[in-house]
Amino acid sequence: MKKYNVAVVGATGMVGRKVLELLEERNFPIENFYPLASARSKGEELTFMGKTYTVQELTEKSFEQDIDIAIFSAGGGTSEKFSPIAAKNNVVVVDNSSAFRMDPTVPLVVPEVNPDDLKWHKNIIANPNCSTIQAVVALKPLHENYKIKRIVYSTYQAVSGSGIKGYEDLEKGVKGGTNEFYPHQIAFNCLPHIDVFLDNGYTKEEMKMIEETQKILGDDSLKITATAVRVPVFYGHSESVNLEFETPFELKEIRSLLSNSPGIVVEDDVANNIYPLARNAEGKNEVFVGRIRRDESVENGLNLWIVADNIRKGAAANAVQIAELLIKNNLLSR
Amino acid sequence: MKKYNVAVVGATGMVGRKVLELLEERNFPIENFYPLASARSKGEELTFMGKTYTVQELTEKSFEQDIDIAIFSAGGGTSEKFSPIAAKNNVVVVDNSSAFRMDPTVPLVVPEVNPDDLKWHKNIIANPNCSTIQAVVALKPLHENYKIKRIVYSTYQAVSGSGIKGYEDLEKGVKGGTNEFYPHQIAFNCLPHIDVFLDNGYTKEEMKMIEETQKILGDDSLKITATAVRVPVFYGHSESVNLEFETPFELKEIRSLLSNSPGIVVEDDVANNIYPLARNAEGKNEVFVGRIRRDESVENGLNLWIVADNIRKGAAANAVQIAELLIKNNLLSR
Repeated sequence: MKKYNVAVVGATGMVGRKVLELLEERNFPIENFYPLASARSKGEELTFMGKTYTVQELTEKSFEQDIDIAIFSAGGGTSEKFSPIAAKNNVVVVDNSSAFRMDPTVPLVVPEVNPDDLKWHKNIIANPNCSTIQAVVALKPLHENYKIKRIVYSTYQAVSGSGIKGYEDLEKGVKGGTNEFYPHQIAFNCLPHIDVFLDNGYTKEEMKMIEETQKILGDDSLKITATAVRVPVFYGHSESVNLEFETPFELKEIRSLLSNSPGIVVEDDVANNIYPLARNAEGKNEVFVGRIRRDESVENGLNLWIVADNIRKGAAANAVQIAELLIKNNLLSR
Repeated sequence: MKKYNVAVVGATGMVGRKVLELLEERNFPIENFYPLASARSKGEELTFMGKTYTVQELTEKSFEQDIDIAIFSAGGGTSEKFSPIAAKNNVVVVDNSSAFRMDPTVPLVVPEVNPDDLKWHKNIIANPNCSTIQAVVALKPLHENYKIKRIVYSTYQAVSGSGIKGYEDLEKGVKGGTNEFYPHQIAFNCLPHIDVFLDNGYTKEEMKMIEETQKILGDDSLKITATAVRVPVFYGHSESVNLEFETPFELKEIRSLLSNSPGIVVEDDVANNIYPLARNAEGKNEVFVGRIRRDESVENGLNLWIVADNIRKGAAANAVQIAELLIKNNLLSR
């Protein structure tokens, strides 16, 4: 089996470490491995696939090395500066930041949803926002069959989505410590505020959900609104998703469609208290769907409760799946 | 000033204790006070308005005493059995349980919203469900001005809504203890499950929000759907509320309307990170509204974030306000 040279940028961060874990778990065919990070983490040692590596500082020269794939999980600024340099060196970048997601020349990919968009990449592929990824995995089969007219998203997002600082704010907060990262206490509280506020009163997170869902489902006419909320949960985003379809459906068809779609686990046996839960999704790569109910307040209406591990399917797992697909479909550039 | 004989049924419970606190805070005109509870709490002593009282056991004979108003906060079973007995004795009951809420002969009242419904009471008045109360306070002025067509509710509800056992599950859970009350861990988790599941896949809590909103706003044609979720918060329910109106609106009109309506505090200055928060609502009797944004995905669409202390405005404060209004409008039965 052919093996590849892989770099992980931001290898010491929360998502970066999960990328390493996933590459190991999935036995990714790696020849040479390059853990890259900012100057701050330079020289740190990490163990990966049984070998010890020293973290290299990310510089403009990093991509002069023989690298096939670089998975970036180091924030928008780093991606904006270094992804184009990597791409120019024919390193294919899978970028976890929001820097290139809405760039019309960059595919925004969830492997279960729009794998074909990988074909037109120009060496940068964007990994979508965590809350968008889990939603579109569930929405894709429904959109194909009944055509979605409108989506109302309300999210319940874990602190790990903010990285280690968000995690620590909750950890300290439940013991009575004060918030250092979030603008308000997150312990025992719900903050309707994720990412920055925009002029239209929406947060950037909310607009990401709206625009990225349209781009991934390939339908700019989709009507979408969103309210994104940070809740005191460590791992796992939950979403209350209200849908309106063009065409009628039967609930049993919906259940069957979701159960037979890739990457989805239906957990919907309310008589036995079975429904998706953030705690149960932790450590899993699938998207969990339940509370499947008709919404009688609108024609062809449906309610869903969608949960996934935001660091796995919402970030690291999706990125590694993209890398796997690039290999499988022979879409690397060297 | 005339004074009244007041009984509190369930005086030792979470809501009952808050009722006592509110009667004190609001200097309710009390002549004689009767703390009633189940046999389990009989003989317990409690201090109220500077005096010590011994809790009496609630029996069928309790309402043969000279009582003007009885505030019931002791669960549906107790209300079903004892409210009619009280009513027959011309005691006016303000009932916090769900037992009589949808009874067409019983008014379901939020003082800021439908005070006139008190006029047709037959000695029982129902206090609505906590999540409904805070929503309708905010929706009433909007419905009057723009006529609501459809509501999509997604809730973020505090454990105190389940009483002391829910509270303790969270308290122990964050320290690593296992859940004893909820079917799943509530600490660091979101449970899309409040009250029991019904045949249509909705929980009873979700159906309460739908049916009670229609009854209180006096409009059975209102289209409503709901997803009710328990979150790891001690006090304060938050709600993501998506609205569709019949008639167009300006956002500044909405802000001004809400700001000038009784019982509402608008907290909506996102540039300064000001929006309603469960932690800030704790201990307050008002309903807090923010994240006021146009929903461009539908004609005349609006998103709101509505927060209130579920034990105060969601239960005890609303009940005490009803009692005050009964006195003010001369609607007692003795």
